[in-house]
Amino acid sequence: MEKKWVYLFSEVKEAEEYVGGNWDDVRGLLGGKGANLAEMKRIEVPVPPGFTITSEACNAFIELGGIFPEDMWEQSLKALEYIESATGKKFGGRENPLLVSCRSGAKFSMPGMMDTVLNIGLNDETSKGIIELTGDERFVYDSYRRLVQMFGSVVMEMPDEIFEDIITEAKKQAKVETDSQLGAEEWKAVTEKFKEVFKRHTRLDFPEDPYVQLTLAIEAVFKSWDGKRAIDYRNAAGIPHDLGTAANIVAMVFGNMGDDSATGVAMTRNGSTGEKQIEGDYLTNAQGEDVVAGIRMTKDISQMIKEMPDAYAEFEKIAQKLEKHYREMQDVEFTIEKGKLWMLQTRDGKRTARAAVRIAVEMADEGLITRKEAVLRVQPEQVDFFLHPQFTVEAKNAARDAGELLASGLNVSPGAASGVVALDADLAEEWGKKGRSVIMVRPETKPDDVHGMLASEGILTSRGGRTSHAALVARQFGKPAVVGVSELKLDMNKRRIQVDDIIINEGDWLSIDGTTGTVYLGKLETIIPDIKDRWLMTLLSWADKFRRLGVWANADYPTDAQRALEYGAEGIGLCRTEHMFLEAERLPLVQKMIMADLPIEKREAIDALLPYQRDDFEKLFRVMDGRPVIIRLIDPPLHEFLPDHIKLMQSLADIKIRVQHAENLEKINILLEKYKETERILRRAMSLRELNPMLGLRGVRLGIHIPELTSMQVRAIFEAACMVKKEGIKVLPEIMIPLTSHCNELKVQRKILENEAASVMNEQNMEVSYKFGTMIELPRAALTADEIAEYAAFISFGTNDLTQTTFGISRDDAESAFLVEYMESGIFPNNPFATVDTDGVGQLMKMAVKKGREKKPSLECGICGEHGGDPQSIFLFHELELNYVSCSPFRVPVARLAAAHAAILENREKQA
Amino acid sequence: MEKKWVYLFSEVKEAEEYVGGNWDDVRGLLGGKGANLAEMKRIEVPVPPGFTITSEACNAFIELGGIFPEDMWEQSLKALEYIESATGKKFGGRENPLLVSCRSGAKFSMPGMMDTVLNIGLNDETSKGIIELTGDERFVYDSYRRLVQMFGSVVMEMPDEIFEDIITEAKKQAKVETDSQLGAEEWKAVTEKFKEVFKRHTRLDFPEDPYVQLTLAIEAVFKSWDGKRAIDYRNAAGIPHDLGTAANIVAMVFGNMGDDSATGVAMTRNGSTGEKQIEGDYLTNAQGEDVVAGIRMTKDISQMIKEMPDAYAEFEKIAQKLEKHYREMQDVEFTIEKGKLWMLQTRDGKRTARAAVRIAVEMADEGLITRKEAVLRVQPEQVDFFLHPQFTVEAKNAARDAGELLASGLNVSPGAASGVVALDADLAEEWGKKGRSVIMVRPETKPDDVHGMLASEGILTSRGGRTSHAALVARQFGKPAVVGVSELKLDMNKRRIQVDDIIINEGDWLSIDGTTGTVYLGKLETIIPDIKDRWLMTLLSWADKFRRLGVWANADYPTDAQRALEYGAEGIGLCRTEHMFLEAERLPLVQKMIMADLPIEKREAIDALLPYQRDDFEKLFRVMDGRPVIIRLIDPPLHEFLPDHIKLMQSLADIKIRVQHAENLEKINILLEKYKETERILRRAMSLRELNPMLGLRGVRLGIHIPELTSMQVRAIFEAACMVKKEGIKVLPEIMIPLTSHCNELKVQRKILENEAASVMNEQNMEVSYKFGTMIELPRAALTADEIAEYAAFISFGTNDLTQTTFGISRDDAESAFLVEYMESGIFPNNPFATVDTDGVGQLMKMAVKKGREKKPSLECGICGEHGGDPQSIFLFHELELNYVSCSPFRVPVARLAAAHAAILENREKQA
Repeated sequence: MEKKWVYLFSEVKEAEEYVGGNWDDVRGLLGGKGANLAEMKRIEVPVPPGFTITSEACNAFIELGGIFPEDMWEQSLKALEYIESATGKKFGGRENPLLVSCRSGAKFSMPGMMDTVLNIGLNDETSKGIIELTGDERFVYDSYRRLVQMFGSVVMEMPDEIFEDIITEAKKQAKVETDSQLGAEEWKAVTEKFKEVFKRHTRLDFPEDPYVQLTLAIEAVFKSWDGKRAIDYRNAAGIPHDLGTAANIVAMVFGNMGDDSATGVAMTRNGSTGEKQIEGDYLTNAQGEDVVAGIRMTKDISQMIKEMPDAYAEFEKIAQKLEKHYREMQDVEFTIEKGKLWMLQTRDGKRTARAAVRIAVEMADEGLITRKEAVLRVQPEQVDFFLHPQFTVEAKNAARDAGELLASGLNVSPGAASGVVALDADLAEEWGKKGRSVIMVRPETKPDDVHGMLASEGILTSRGGRTSHAALVARQFGKPAVVGVSELKLDMNKRRIQVDDIIINEGDWLSIDGTTGTVYLGKLETIIPDIKDRWLMTLLSWADKFRRLGVWANADYPTDAQRALEYGAEGIGLCRTEHMFLEAERLPLVQKMIMADLPIEKREAIDALLPYQRDDFEKLFRVMDGRPVIIRLIDPPLHEFLPDHIKLMQSLADIKIRVQHAENLEKINILLEKYKETERILRRAMSLRELNPMLGLRGVRLGIHIPELTSMQVRAIFEAACMVKKEGIKVLPEIMIPLTSHCNELKVQRKILENEAASVMNEQNMEVSYKFGTMIELPRAALTADEIAEYAAFISFGTNDLTQTTFGISRDDAESAFLVEYMESGIFPNNPFATVDTDGVGQLMKMAVKKGREKKPSLECGICGEHGGDPQSIFLFHELELNYVSCSPFRVPVARLAAAHAAILENREKQA
Repeated sequence: MEKKWVYLFSEVKEAEEYVGGNWDDVRGLLGGKGANLAEMKRIEVPVPPGFTITSEACNAFIELGGIFPEDMWEQSLKALEYIESATGKKFGGRENPLLVSCRSGAKFSMPGMMDTVLNIGLNDETSKGIIELTGDERFVYDSYRRLVQMFGSVVMEMPDEIFEDIITEAKKQAKVETDSQLGAEEWKAVTEKFKEVFKRHTRLDFPEDPYVQLTLAIEAVFKSWDGKRAIDYRNAAGIPHDLGTAANIVAMVFGNMGDDSATGVAMTRNGSTGEKQIEGDYLTNAQGEDVVAGIRMTKDISQMIKEMPDAYAEFEKIAQKLEKHYREMQDVEFTIEKGKLWMLQTRDGKRTARAAVRIAVEMADEGLITRKEAVLRVQPEQVDFFLHPQFTVEAKNAARDAGELLASGLNVSPGAASGVVALDADLAEEWGKKGRSVIMVRPETKPDDVHGMLASEGILTSRGGRTSHAALVARQFGKPAVVGVSELKLDMNKRRIQVDDIIINEGDWLSIDGTTGTVYLGKLETIIPDIKDRWLMTLLSWADKFRRLGVWANADYPTDAQRALEYGAEGIGLCRTEHMFLEAERLPLVQKMIMADLPIEKREAIDALLPYQRDDFEKLFRVMDGRPVIIRLIDPPLHEFLPDHIKLMQSLADIKIRVQHAENLEKINILLEKYKETERILRRAMSLRELNPMLGLRGVRLGIHIPELTSMQVRAIFEAACMVKKEGIKVLPEIMIPLTSHCNELKVQRKILENEAASVMNEQNMEVSYKFGTMIELPRAALTADEIAEYAAFISFGTNDLTQTTFGISRDDAESAFLVEYMESGIFPNNPFATVDTDGVGQLMKMAVKKGREKKPSLECGICGEHGGDPQSIFLFHELELNYVSCSPFRVPVARLAAAHAAILENREKQA
């Protein structure tokens, strides 16, 4: 049997059989557009007759060095005959000529592919035939000149300006303003001129033969697959080069054949809000491109109900049918030719995060999809939308209408920000420190600019891509950013930006939308979307049913804990007690403890801290009301509680100078006292100074070095627990030791804890059940998790520190230095501090869970590093069978959804 | 059958059968002493008749709450009858009474065990019988009082002074100076007085009944097994508590029965030099303890040849027989009673490191042992002796003779040192900096003292044990140290030390021998023993044949490389190129490179370094003459090449003051220039400053950040290689990338290397074969060694950094802070920077080797951290099947021997 290169839209079944039944493979063979046209045909949605030349034909064409494979053209001609018989028209016929369009359609849409050539089949002869048939000369010549223009620009790659210049000249001569004011004669003349420039440029006559037109159009589609832009895109997006593109040949239908004709685009639901209501635009007596081009004012689709009630009713039915069939919101194109509705395209509709949530929930409620599917339809990162500031729709529309939509670029870091323009990092920092909102604008950013980026509300650059320094750093620090806005011309001498003829001076207001990549003049109103959106709440409650991972939150203060609960956290996975040490009234006590020369002084200072800590814990326990609260004992090195040695040295120098200028002896004495005290602090600060504090006297090492500190914290926890329990509130404290490297450290600390806990419970005459555990944040702890499990009821991965030590990279030093360089050059595929490194850190975690649970099957395993809120990392944590992730309260909703995805997809894989 | 509790010396065969043939178990049953006596009997060496009560009897005794197990006493009496019949004497008999000794003897000797009771069987009756028999009344009463004294002090635990006071009083009354001047009457009176104080203290009459004497002596032996000192020792030494001790009952023979009697101790070879010549001391007409007590001047054993030629001839024959039988140098005790030679004990002799080497080699040459055995007879750490300074034998003898042997304590860190006494760390540091040799003397040391310890030649403390802070730190830094010298009384007010009535003022000279634990007054002459000792050379050459591990050296300079070769290194495992950067003439170039504002300036500075580096490599290649040389590209962070920021800040302050006092404008201008330049350097230093430089911009990150640096170093290596190759010398460079965490880092650096190498070889028209590899010093590199092996021909574990990151411990910060605390309290069993941590770091290494070799079976695996020279770690490295260890040239001989031990013992285990 001959190879089948061509499928009629009615032959979707044959295509399915050929590829083995899989719809995804049908899309591969026929392209997305072709497959959907055929599918619509199958479910009896009216589509114009047509056929698809397969992507295999494209591949064969490329392989043969640019000629059609055997029999392809013959099969195409046969398919064309079918269209002729279906329409009763004749391709190239004089009486009732058939016109067709030729459009590319690959499995995935991509830039650089040849778009559309309409009206193929028109020539001097056939145009006359249509004029006779329709009596509408203007329409025919307008169509004819469009064919020549598209053929020139799209097939022959002529610059489009050549054609536009001719139209402009024609309008000038006719003394009219718009294209629509040009008449039949003018268009006829334009068509002639188009043919002339076509010949001048291509050294070829414009092909009058419709079959030559068709051949060249199909070749152009195939060739565009191997164009540079398409290849670059596929490389970047990881799309295989051997997919090929299909070509769709469709009988033309015309929305511009009078007032009973129309053309439009629509979505089956609202793409911004998700509301279940058809949303779209249409134009009567117009061709499709007019709607998109924005030359004429389009009408809202709701007007069709009045204007064309029958067509609208049919359209509405079809829209519902398509949604039901595809079980997804659809984005469609249609044309009404003399009252007859034709669907020209359907595909899944794009939507905002908010709409995605609502559509998914409502479709599940309607029974169109399952709740699992609904959960999977929303990407975890889309939940983040509900937490970032956004410009209001009104503000955006108003800005657009006022011509203040300045430019657009790559949306590399979500969220909206307004601020005054600062053109360098130092100024950005200076203004930022003064409390001004700043948008830092640079050609591109470098490590030297990071301080300015941190002080800004948002970042805007004229160069750079998705992995540029600016993009990486901005995402890192959660700053909205738009990069690669090539229209921006920065003039550093005049300290201003120019976009076309608009000038923005340094200090002027600018607004950027990192979610969409748009840049606006002036200051736009922002809102923080409501996390309590009822559809989101519903979706998350469904997600909770499917996920296996618990979602806890990192919270140090009662307010944080409260928010965490509201966002759905099931416990506190990390309460950092040192933050409590840094508060204004307590810091002096901590410093006193550090500066104490005698053990008794040290002890006194520590004891004075106790009531504060107890109070903190009481409040936390009350809020959490019986849910687990993991309290981590003090972690940072002591010198963090003292002033920096450089600042102290500067103070000393200052005091010296002030002594020289002091007015009287009394002042001098006061200054000298101060000098001595500062010197004393400096001496202690210097003695506590470490070359590598990250690897120094901190974490459990502190608790072993100063056991009184452990005792005090444990006492505060248990006194608070007893107090709250007496109020009738349940408490479930879990005490966590940081930075363990050897099980003996736990052994020693556990003894201190058990003694202190026992005495408090004895004093209070009360039992408090609690757990004792440790963080796993050093490779050795992971490697020896079996030994550690002997002393720990739970382990919690501190993936920040674990990443630092596994990689030997100090995050603080690296992110402003070489880490960005590493990501830009692709040495690291990801920032390992944002998404957990599966190969290294993940491997250690896997070992630890396995070894720990082998020793103690009940071992509770969690993770409380920042990775706990990263969807990609959450997939790994699910796979590792952790009990929970703990993350920032703001990431809790994201984590809930991501955890559900992980569980649902894992089950699917198992079933597959 | 009844349980056999008692074995005659002639029943060794029965004992062997009972335990199942294993000699080690015989030693367990009969104790070391008893087993050897029985063994001597078997090989027909003359030992007095006797028997051993087993350690099982001891255990049964303890279990029964302090009574002899059934039948034990009856069996002992039967054995006693055998002695009676063998000697023709009668225990408790009036005519020819039998006297016996009772001595403990466990499998391992340990302090706190009951020693010896001699002369059991003497009482008022039997003493008369012996007097009649020998006519020597003085001898008998001397023996009698010894029995009472030993019985009192050893069995009844009376303080020995009570007895000594009576003897002193007797001498005073008799107006004589020494014990030997006391006559029969005096000893008789002393014996009576002894019995009186015995009764006063114990409320018991001295037991006249010989059987009661024997019973009590045996009980005392058994009880001493469960004494506090013995238990403590066993806990510390890891000896099981259920071994029990045997008791040996031996017929007394007397060396004090006239001039044809003698007693002595000897070693079958020289214990200091190892020379094959009997070495020992003896006394005619004396009892054993007199030789040891040093009351009388002993005679060198060589004198026996003249004095007692027959006895000596027999003794010499027996000594040879014992050595041959035990295949080991023996330490023996003997007594000659009226011309008849009796051997009382034999055991393996103690020896110096030097002697151990010579004896092992010569015994192998004599065919007494195999070469493998010879290699195993010397501990790797003993080789270290040949590298540390030692006091000369002459100096030690002279000091001892002059009464300058002050005290002794624990030998916790080997080597000899002399210096002036400093009683605190600050003074030690001050004097040390002035170039004075200092011995720091403290009650004990604390972390605050480390700076003083570092500045001292040696450390001496009056308190503390083998895991005290002083011991750990001293070993750490290779400082000789003696600790726990309780005789030292430190008077911090008078700034002096007192030992008995000797006063040592601060600033006086003192000498300590950390190898032996002795302390001398004054300054003793030291020598560094000869590593080229011919026996050592032979032993190491044998070791080389048995080992599987290669031994390479870490060497940065040609002189180091030369020494490494002399010590037997087979290659250079680590040449640190940054040391080359720090030399006086090059540092300015390096600083210029760092300070360069423009790429061209940077490039110029880097290029200027090239000739220096090339020259370094040329010299190294010449010395190594075709052996592999692993060159590590630059590793440390750049700020290490700039002055410290604090120093720079001080300079600025200084200049400011000098400006104020400057005499003229010219000087001011010069100072201001200097100020500006210093400020510029400070600014750069501050911008390069990192919070955790260990985890910062260093290693391969530098090479990626400044690719010109990699190119320059690679060019220098290949230009040097070509140059040397042209001279006809072979070269084998291996280029090593430090601090890799991800295989992509290697991928990028390898490309730079290959390009640069290719251009040099092209320019020079020459091929140089080389290898490209990396250090594994980060957990992630170990975890992903399979990926790394794709780009590396070799890996070399940097166990220092790997330990730091696996534990999350900065060595620099920890060793002066919490690490010592951790070891003192036993949280860490070892210092992980001295002996590699098997559980954590070792586990990572094992994974890395396995994964790496699975991917690339030819992968060369080595280790170049300091652990490469640690014998315990070398056992692990052997087990991991590394190709080589690379260590300091000074540790090469130690490593060669340790590697041989690992290989031999592994094979033994496999055969077992």
